[in-house]
Amino acid sequence: MDKIKTPTLVIKESVCRRNIKTMAEKCRKSNVSFRPHFKTHQSAEVGKWFKDEGVEKIAVSSFSMAQYFADNGWDDIMVAFPLNLREIDTLNKLSEKINISILLAGNEPLPLLAKELKNEVDFYVEIDVGTKRSGYNPDSVVKIEKMLDLADMNNKLKFKGIVAYAGGLTYNAKNFAEIKSTYEKGVKKLQTLKNYFSRRYSDMIISWGDTPSCTVLDSFEGVDEIRPGNFVYYDLRQYKAKICKLDDIAVAVAAPIVAKYIDRHEVVVHGGAVHLSKEYITENQKPSWGMMVFFTENGWEFPAQPSHVRKISQEHGVISTNPDDFYSANVGDLIGIIPVRACFVATNLKDNFYYI
Amino acid sequence: MDKIKTPTLVIKESVCRRNIKTMAEKCRKSNVSFRPHFKTHQSAEVGKWFKDEGVEKIAVSSFSMAQYFADNGWDDIMVAFPLNLREIDTLNKLSEKINISILLAGNEPLPLLAKELKNEVDFYVEIDVGTKRSGYNPDSVVKIEKMLDLADMNNKLKFKGIVAYAGGLTYNAKNFAEIKSTYEKGVKKLQTLKNYFSRRYSDMIISWGDTPSCTVLDSFEGVDEIRPGNFVYYDLRQYKAKICKLDDIAVAVAAPIVAKYIDRHEVVVHGGAVHLSKEYITENQKPSWGMMVFFTENGWEFPAQPSHVRKISQEHGVISTNPDDFYSANVGDLIGIIPVRACFVATNLKDNFYYI
Repeated sequence: MDKIKTPTLVIKESVCRRNIKTMAEKCRKSNVSFRPHFKTHQSAEVGKWFKDEGVEKIAVSSFSMAQYFADNGWDDIMVAFPLNLREIDTLNKLSEKINISILLAGNEPLPLLAKELKNEVDFYVEIDVGTKRSGYNPDSVVKIEKMLDLADMNNKLKFKGIVAYAGGLTYNAKNFAEIKSTYEKGVKKLQTLKNYFSRRYSDMIISWGDTPSCTVLDSFEGVDEIRPGNFVYYDLRQYKAKICKLDDIAVAVAAPIVAKYIDRHEVVVHGGAVHLSKEYITENQKPSWGMMVFFTENGWEFPAQPSHVRKISQEHGVISTNPDDFYSANVGDLIGIIPVRACFVATNLKDNFYYI
Repeated sequence: MDKIKTPTLVIKESVCRRNIKTMAEKCRKSNVSFRPHFKTHQSAEVGKWFKDEGVEKIAVSSFSMAQYFADNGWDDIMVAFPLNLREIDTLNKLSEKINISILLAGNEPLPLLAKELKNEVDFYVEIDVGTKRSGYNPDSVVKIEKMLDLADMNNKLKFKGIVAYAGGLTYNAKNFAEIKSTYEKGVKKLQTLKNYFSRRYSDMIISWGDTPSCTVLDSFEGVDEIRPGNFVYYDLRQYKAKICKLDDIAVAVAAPIVAKYIDRHEVVVHGGAVHLSKEYITENQKPSWGMMVFFTENGWEFPAQPSHVRKISQEHGVISTNPDDFYSANVGDLIGIIPVRACFVATNLKDNFYYI
């Protein structure tokens, strides 16, 4: 790690592979298809570890990510984000070569798709199971039916199924019971729709997302496919919600120590909001933008007493340490920071990944 | 703007140039030197507009930014961030060609600098005027003196002055009086140090940062140089603190509309936390991650009633609109979002700038 000069995301291969294997095995046991969401890692290298587990199809959240993974050998990619019509040229280009599928979260894109779609494209309809972000209300059967009628008039569009993401609910759930009940209620609504529409589309599937529910549940009754993303790395937020253990977290930001102040036992690192993001958890009634670890030969270790990033600005992170750890952290060294939200940090540091 | 396909930072040249001119003129009147902080814009193009106002020296917050602006013709650059010793090779490379100056916020880097510094380098000592981020406590005269003694033993290091940044206080000030008083108290401490050390270093200067104080004050008594950054664009946070007017804001994020929902009068855009950042203001007792505007031929206009980004996830932004504006926002169109924190957004979108 001597080569690391600036804030870098250190990725622990063994833990990451274990997380992938656990989820892949659960899918096999549940007999559901596994379409991991690659927005969390955005790494061709990590992608290979999925391939080693037999994964063949993925989800991403933008066409630029789709392009990146297509360039790296993936040929079944769902852009799990409401179609951005301004990227229709990218869609046409990608669909020449690979099986790229899109998400429709309303009927507005259909007229332009009728005019401009050049190749056959699979599509999914997004259903909002309570996140209130995007997708049809599951009760709006008439609207969904009207949309499918319109889509059927376009012989290049092939309906594959319905897609839901409950992360807006499960990430903020109070306990596992609430996560399970979110899953059950959501899947029940999706099944009602499937029962209705499968008369027309006998092969349609239900695809379900989000790491908390996919981690907490032992099996995936009632769905055909899952699309979790964060589980590949996990992070401090998932640990705080008891979704994972500390040892399940596969990433730490390596941040150079640039100053330290004994009067306040604080260590200042190059590792600020543009690296760690402004996402925080509350720890001991105070915000934390990350938890400090010490790098070792094979990874990192947790101090006996946790220390946290307690102040953050554009490029600075300020870690409050206990006295022992203060003396172990030297200016010029790298310190590790377990990030609050792995997905944001991987995006911010995507030109600086380091695999161990 | 038809060419814009994905979230892009739209930069209004006329407003940006006016902001630069106003600050440059205030510096000339106050007879202080102007070293704008370029971390806010990170754009060679915007850099040229500063050159047109006679600006010759700049501050940045990392060596990679220093490299970028050095490649674009700047030859007097302060890396206004505590020296990252792991980047000593970059420092040696840059200092071969340009006048690069560094910040010391403690004496820890001196032994390595004694061994590894290849060319003459100007340095400044960072003083903490209350932000408690990095820098010497202004009362620690003995510590500072000891540090300067050590630095003087290295004939490649040239002491230029003391540097302070009060943004941690002024960004959170309740009113202008508090900003002015932060400035006065801070500058008084810096002057005490200058009076003491100028016996040894007769040319030493006081350099002062932060946009709120540099905007609110009419003149800069007691300092020799200012280093504001954000004023070049301003943003929603500065508007909310009454530091600027809406018409002074030079940037808006162009975000493609991907869905809209009449039952909740919400418009969904491709423009999420990885673009807008998680920084928010509180507006009508609710968080806002940005304010909606409509693009026009020459820029953008504000709706009669403001609409805000009320939910945000990795790639999605959800804007709550009033009914009239809901009907004016169509899927496939671009909508403008005035960002909460221009500096973060410029970092996130630095490969997607669009000048109007």
